[in-house]
Amino acid sequence: MAADPMDLFTRHEETLDKAVAAIRGRHFWTPYPESPSPRLYGEDAAPRGQAAFEAYLGRDFPLDQPSDGGRVATERSPYGIALEVGYPHADADTLVAAAGAALPSWRDAGVRARAGVCLEILDRLNKRSFEMAHAVQHTSGQAFVMAFQAGGPQAQDRGLEAVAYGYDLISAYASEARWEKPQRKGAPVAMDKRFHAVPRGVALVVGCNTFPTWNAYPGLFASLVTGNPVILKPHPRAVLPAAITVAVARDVLAEAGLDPNTVLLAAERPDERLAATLATRPEVRVVDFTGSTEFGEWLEANAAQAFVSTEKAGVNAVVVDSTDAYRGMLGNLAFSLSLYSGQMCTTPQNLFVPRGGIDTDEGPKSAEQVADDLAESIRGLLGEPARAAGVLGAIANDGVLARIEAAGGLGEAVLESAEVAHPDFPGAVLRTPVVVRLDADRREVYGREHFGPVSFVVTVDDTAHALRLLGETVTERGALTAAVYSTDESVLDEAERTALEAGVNLSANLTGQVFVNQSAAFSDYHGTGANPAATASLTDPSFVAGRFHFVQSRRPA
Amino acid sequence: MAADPMDLFTRHEETLDKAVAAIRGRHFWTPYPESPSPRLYGEDAAPRGQAAFEAYLGRDFPLDQPSDGGRVATERSPYGIALEVGYPHADADTLVAAAGAALPSWRDAGVRARAGVCLEILDRLNKRSFEMAHAVQHTSGQAFVMAFQAGGPQAQDRGLEAVAYGYDLISAYASEARWEKPQRKGAPVAMDKRFHAVPRGVALVVGCNTFPTWNAYPGLFASLVTGNPVILKPHPRAVLPAAITVAVARDVLAEAGLDPNTVLLAAERPDERLAATLATRPEVRVVDFTGSTEFGEWLEANAAQAFVSTEKAGVNAVVVDSTDAYRGMLGNLAFSLSLYSGQMCTTPQNLFVPRGGIDTDEGPKSAEQVADDLAESIRGLLGEPARAAGVLGAIANDGVLARIEAAGGLGEAVLESAEVAHPDFPGAVLRTPVVVRLDADRREVYGREHFGPVSFVVTVDDTAHALRLLGETVTERGALTAAVYSTDESVLDEAERTALEAGVNLSANLTGQVFVNQSAAFSDYHGTGANPAATASLTDPSFVAGRFHFVQSRRPA
Repeated sequence: MAADPMDLFTRHEETLDKAVAAIRGRHFWTPYPESPSPRLYGEDAAPRGQAAFEAYLGRDFPLDQPSDGGRVATERSPYGIALEVGYPHADADTLVAAAGAALPSWRDAGVRARAGVCLEILDRLNKRSFEMAHAVQHTSGQAFVMAFQAGGPQAQDRGLEAVAYGYDLISAYASEARWEKPQRKGAPVAMDKRFHAVPRGVALVVGCNTFPTWNAYPGLFASLVTGNPVILKPHPRAVLPAAITVAVARDVLAEAGLDPNTVLLAAERPDERLAATLATRPEVRVVDFTGSTEFGEWLEANAAQAFVSTEKAGVNAVVVDSTDAYRGMLGNLAFSLSLYSGQMCTTPQNLFVPRGGIDTDEGPKSAEQVADDLAESIRGLLGEPARAAGVLGAIANDGVLARIEAAGGLGEAVLESAEVAHPDFPGAVLRTPVVVRLDADRREVYGREHFGPVSFVVTVDDTAHALRLLGETVTERGALTAAVYSTDESVLDEAERTALEAGVNLSANLTGQVFVNQSAAFSDYHGTGANPAATASLTDPSFVAGRFHFVQSRRPA
Repeated sequence: MAADPMDLFTRHEETLDKAVAAIRGRHFWTPYPESPSPRLYGEDAAPRGQAAFEAYLGRDFPLDQPSDGGRVATERSPYGIALEVGYPHADADTLVAAAGAALPSWRDAGVRARAGVCLEILDRLNKRSFEMAHAVQHTSGQAFVMAFQAGGPQAQDRGLEAVAYGYDLISAYASEARWEKPQRKGAPVAMDKRFHAVPRGVALVVGCNTFPTWNAYPGLFASLVTGNPVILKPHPRAVLPAAITVAVARDVLAEAGLDPNTVLLAAERPDERLAATLATRPEVRVVDFTGSTEFGEWLEANAAQAFVSTEKAGVNAVVVDSTDAYRGMLGNLAFSLSLYSGQMCTTPQNLFVPRGGIDTDEGPKSAEQVADDLAESIRGLLGEPARAAGVLGAIANDGVLARIEAAGGLGEAVLESAEVAHPDFPGAVLRTPVVVRLDADRREVYGREHFGPVSFVVTVDDTAHALRLLGETVTERGALTAAVYSTDESVLDEAERTALEAGVNLSANLTGQVFVNQSAAFSDYHGTGANPAATASLTDPSFVAGRFHFVQSRRPA
């Protein structure tokens, strides 16, 4: 039975209002608890989620959408379990036609109905966060708790954030107005005007292997709330989280009496290059992409008909000048380098340390000592296999393994990578991080990205040199994150100025439970769009404003 | 003596707040009176403005900016008077370097100081609206009163509107925040965050011949308020209005202790192609353009490093279905077709009239009768030379003349163009409009733009056919405006839906003193960005949001 989508708006209006207040105030807020606690999600949420995940394995995923009848199964778990989930295949013509046919009704529903539908989708996804956690774990290789948090509530936060921006950017402007122009004599000239927010067209979201929901939800929900039907093209290795998302969305749409083809899954055959085909279709007017620099740049150059947002690669940097919490700094950095085996686009790669060493609360430390202490801190963090598995997760693909192998030869390895046995998954591929010490003159090495658990302690002349290298490498190759450690306010100011010039977000003196590679939705921007790592920021006004136009009509009152 | 730019913000804050309220509410508002009345602008404003204009003639324009010492003089008045104003020439290297050097101080001034400077510039331009009127008249060919209004207060409105959007889109989001994340045990994790709006880079505004201020101010002020220094490259035929604008801006900047090179004039030698050179410089990250489809599309394809907004050409359409104010409709259309000799990007070109005629308050009218009555209405409007000169203005360039000559051969001329003698300027080139009747099957003629006073009454099967042709021609070739006349609500609804699908702004049943080719800042959008005529709308959030990024820093509280 069709529900009125405006009921969904009413149901979620308070959450939406709070989300709008949060994106404007940048304070802490979330409606989706990040803790996988039975107290928060219910006693049976964990076993139900696991059962739901297991029910998918070895079967055709239950998704009723336009298809050519073929099935594709392209995933394999980095934890070694068999997945063998089959997804319906559809070609570009079918997908674009179905999405295009859904556009008018989705547009005409209006921003409030669309926001209501989006929030209902997110609410249902939140209730299925355990199911999603398993799906994300076994496609990305993230450890379970991280897969729960980053794949579930934190991804939902980023989706809601995008909805809030879209809703705010449309509803801030009157949709109707009486315009009355005073005249020198007589009554004013009066016009009645209506303003419609119309979508650009069909939207494409191209997902990645490592964060199949977190990186896809901003584009998905930003496009939806602004009226664009979305084709979600997941990475062939991480289809299940996208399929669950699409299935939930289509359920909500159908129940609201809307066209379920407003959200479609584009599961592709190996080497089909479906993303490139879809992205260059004239009907496709919005493209969101997370992945390689090569394909990101190809999209920017070739999807000229579309509003294209890309997140690619970068060389994230840390400047170590001084600290009054040496152990805290080492522990914080060790965790940042180890978390999900450095397979985050936000993991630091280059740690710039002055040749003459640094001042700390434990006295001066030489550059060599800092590197060795960092290595020791990582060893301590990962010494116990069960804990190590919970931090590291599994290696997502062979490319990462190859870079780990190659890293040792790039300089002086102060920490070598080791295999770790997973306590639950004997087939899991786990590796500890590599830390390599280099001199600043080896820019051909640290000046490019080595995605995975590979970091460089780069010896520099002094802090000014470190800041200059941070600015130059970020300007040349991009970065999602930068960090600085210093007890000197003037160094912190200079670092902030350097980051601002290079267009990268900066974290200073992180020694506790906030990590440079984590950003909090509604408050922290993920990326800036101001350096080569990404053309967009999750989420700022420009990420959303390019997805719709205002079209007006007017007539004499 | 340097004033604090924050004083300028304080001085103009109330105006800015009202502007923000107006862009959100879309109601009538303007701080700049459009009437050239001595009561509003002062008794001596008119003679002072004329004297200021005349003092420029035959001399070097007083503009102290980086230059190679050369002078360029490329203007000629469509009214036949000698201009011979020389402007300082600078090459792309000099301009880009000077603008780039101005960027940090302009960025660091902050959005409030920038808005204060922009509003002071606009306020001074407003006070010089008579001077500007002469400058616009003798470069564009607009008649004096129109040049006053569209070149002065209405252009200033559009500039202020852009400032309001930029100020609102930046200041709506907190620039500082304390983020406190609750913990299960103990005190919250607290971070102090700062958010900087940083500009994309150096901005380029490429002006046009016909509206040298109105079409340039949105980009100029949108870029300025968001922190981008601007190089204003005027059309070689319309440099003076830009030079006055740049001179005023540089005065205000210098007085506020800021770098005057935040705004620069790029006067070019004939055939120098300075716009293309500047637009493809890596430092130039924002480009605004008004002009030909050919160069607009070239910029979109070749200035890939920049956020590019273009306004090009289109085929504006009117659907005539029925009316209860036949004389009012004819009078309104006659004025729209005649105003500034159709040299507006918003002038209707194609009037679709059903073959079987239309119902009116004066009884049924055949399609032939409608065309003849429209011709008669234009003749009546332009029968008296002084009044005709005030409506028509002068023909801006030979391209327009050539299209007038060619138009008669395109179909049945129901109104032929005639020369008009200007009462004050014997050398002025004035022409009345051409109206040609065609059948709908002559799409190769009316399906492309004939910029100037050339319109087609296109006979169609019926209103549904008219709406289909409106949708198709706008989708194919773009349009800035569309209009419909009907007494039938269902036709008006269908027209609105067609306009929405084609992405064009629609005016319905204009029979009085509001014209389809005029849009009111703060309320009406100029263009939509949703059809091939323009990639941007003056002004909506997306026109401004792409000009800056947020870059944040955070540290433990």
